[in-house]
Amino acid sequence: MSSNGTAAQRATPVALLGFGTVGQAVTRILCSGDVAGLELTHIFNREVARKRAAWVPSSVVWTESIDDVLHSDAEIVIELIGGLSPTNEWVRSALQSGKSVVTANKQLIAHFGGELLALARDVGREIRFEASVAGGIPVLRALQEGLAGDRLVEVRGILNGTCAYILSRMQSEGTSFAAALAEAQAAGFAEADPSEDVDGADAAAKLAIMAAVGLRRPVRVSSIATRSIRPIEAVDFEYARQLGCTIRQIARASIEDDGRVFAAVRPALVPLNSAFARIEGSQNIVAVRGVHGGETSFSGSGAGGAPTAVAVVSDVLSVRQSRLGGPPAALTMMTEVYDVNSDVVAPHYVRFIVNDKPGILAQVTAAYARYGINIDGVLQLPRFRKDRLPFVTTLEECPESMLDRALAEVARSDYQVQPPLALPIFA
Amino acid sequence: MSSNGTAAQRATPVALLGFGTVGQAVTRILCSGDVAGLELTHIFNREVARKRAAWVPSSVVWTESIDDVLHSDAEIVIELIGGLSPTNEWVRSALQSGKSVVTANKQLIAHFGGELLALARDVGREIRFEASVAGGIPVLRALQEGLAGDRLVEVRGILNGTCAYILSRMQSEGTSFAAALAEAQAAGFAEADPSEDVDGADAAAKLAIMAAVGLRRPVRVSSIATRSIRPIEAVDFEYARQLGCTIRQIARASIEDDGRVFAAVRPALVPLNSAFARIEGSQNIVAVRGVHGGETSFSGSGAGGAPTAVAVVSDVLSVRQSRLGGPPAALTMMTEVYDVNSDVVAPHYVRFIVNDKPGILAQVTAAYARYGINIDGVLQLPRFRKDRLPFVTTLEECPESMLDRALAEVARSDYQVQPPLALPIFA
Repeated sequence: MSSNGTAAQRATPVALLGFGTVGQAVTRILCSGDVAGLELTHIFNREVARKRAAWVPSSVVWTESIDDVLHSDAEIVIELIGGLSPTNEWVRSALQSGKSVVTANKQLIAHFGGELLALARDVGREIRFEASVAGGIPVLRALQEGLAGDRLVEVRGILNGTCAYILSRMQSEGTSFAAALAEAQAAGFAEADPSEDVDGADAAAKLAIMAAVGLRRPVRVSSIATRSIRPIEAVDFEYARQLGCTIRQIARASIEDDGRVFAAVRPALVPLNSAFARIEGSQNIVAVRGVHGGETSFSGSGAGGAPTAVAVVSDVLSVRQSRLGGPPAALTMMTEVYDVNSDVVAPHYVRFIVNDKPGILAQVTAAYARYGINIDGVLQLPRFRKDRLPFVTTLEECPESMLDRALAEVARSDYQVQPPLALPIFA
Repeated sequence: MSSNGTAAQRATPVALLGFGTVGQAVTRILCSGDVAGLELTHIFNREVARKRAAWVPSSVVWTESIDDVLHSDAEIVIELIGGLSPTNEWVRSALQSGKSVVTANKQLIAHFGGELLALARDVGREIRFEASVAGGIPVLRALQEGLAGDRLVEVRGILNGTCAYILSRMQSEGTSFAAALAEAQAAGFAEADPSEDVDGADAAAKLAIMAAVGLRRPVRVSSIATRSIRPIEAVDFEYARQLGCTIRQIARASIEDDGRVFAAVRPALVPLNSAFARIEGSQNIVAVRGVHGGETSFSGSGAGGAPTAVAVVSDVLSVRQSRLGGPPAALTMMTEVYDVNSDVVAPHYVRFIVNDKPGILAQVTAAYARYGINIDGVLQLPRFRKDRLPFVTTLEECPESMLDRALAEVARSDYQVQPPLALPIFA
């Protein structure tokens, strides 16, 4: 959200708890100039002397004392420490000090979200937690606001990047669970103790948050039954393929016809041609079903410093916006309209329909050559009439405007039964 | 958004302009009890005597006079008339009368969105238009708020349901454009004059809105170059398939490295294994790319009365929320926690690893039969060691708890080398 409209509004002071992967990415965005209206004033971390980074503006106060943050002028505290204790106490203290809180802490929200929201309401502040589920995909906002006019009855998702990484490696490489896990650990996609990820507790916490926000059915995390992906073997992917399927860890919650809440985290078979099967590595997907709007899906980066930081900073901007009052100004004035370039630069598909005779391809390729357009391939399927013969040239990346000129020359030839059709190829 | 917290807040009066497909669907949601805090007070339409529906509560005032609405107590006006005139004047009048406006009118926003937003800001009211792009998919909110912390540089989408319907029919049935168009018209997916859809103006208006909201680059709709899908023939799908592709109408806008804005609507080849190729009928997809968060995709129902109505009602709820002040209360108190059922009822995959001997399958199937579980199929791939032989049974839908009991019986048999693995199959 740019600061158009009332540019004179002062920047909102923001404090950061935790300078790990996500905290560093948040700091980079706040210092990038890509977002306006926010000023990072404090970074809290252990061992500040070791953590302090030279690229962070010198105006930022580094501290190992939570009280420095609680007693500061920061209006918004970003909590990226994780865990339940002492984080829960610190977040409560921040709210009680009149600060709003933005967090990526799924366990904190899954366990204490209701109480923290109530506390925030009581003190007239906010707690936001978009980054706690599905990293950079703004799915909680979509469930809470964008689909508020529906009655959602089911959420399904691939919510754990470690499982997606391990299972997609087992699928593509035929490796064992142990080998894929070791590979994930070496690549930094799995913890030394991977239990929370591979046995389902991580996805269960995220599912509990989605059940509360999307289905409006808060549930205890401990009541969500989980099954581990550990017993899955390479041979299971072979058999799954025989069934047109692959295997993914699926988190699913729904409101059943009798009003009961279903929630479980399981490895499961999903069809190879489904969106769920195409999720690999750190990608996440969430599909929700409403009684009025049907199914809506969201996919993108479910983990990683920068995507998670986008969710955190978006929440911080929302808090700032609601403190300033009024809705965000999304469209700027049409008087500031931008010029548009519409010249598609891409590989191209060009289909001709010709009255066949010798030398046609030579003429076409000569015209391409005059405009510096390189041919990638030629396709001519059998069994067509010779006087209405369709054939195709595929071209390397070129500007559509250049291709149009080449085709205009060719189109004048008497063997062209109808004008050639050019389509860009989007990878 | 439920009305928890302050249940005594009075309902916000809402007026509806236009009782067509979407208007009727909005009315059904408002009367369904699925959303709280809104009261439909007026319906404006031509020929009220003919349009009046018995299922609408008798408290609703039907009128053919726009002044009745403008002079009413309605705080939010829902505009579902379409077109630019007199709609633009009416929307301006509504804002000037102190009413907020929610609209699904893409042409109105693409042409006058900047001015209308400025007017709304000046009078301290809101205009919202989530339903104007991609029907039931809350993509504008995601671009504007959920990804506000990123700097978005590209949006791509399949935004026109008529084109998606026609092109997916041509792909699957091998029909001509003319035949697929006639079919779309008969099925109600295309207008008598389909030009706005098939020639690209509809998608261009939606793309202009996404460029303004997502890329923060307002552009003139007329400056977006469009190409029609009319010249595409059945043979193009044959050739596209040879290239591992199919054909869809793609709307794309981006900020180029030199800062220029690119925007175009084109039929294009897209890979068969891509999310874009899997979009059919009235489905829409939008993919956005940001410098920090990478690619995020949104898909769902892009058209249809009920999905579009969900977007409209969600906007109305957002306006109500921002008038009431404060953030929405998403999670209810954890004291209201719900019980969870985790018994997955689904078709199942069960993999055994056995020391092969005669009669094993008979014992397994007998155990299934004792628990009323029906076998769907048996799979045994060749070339495995007989003393560690994996084979699979697929089962018709059954409760996981019942399957667990059947497998517990089987697991005691001495031929089981390791416990069987049961996975649900999610279609």
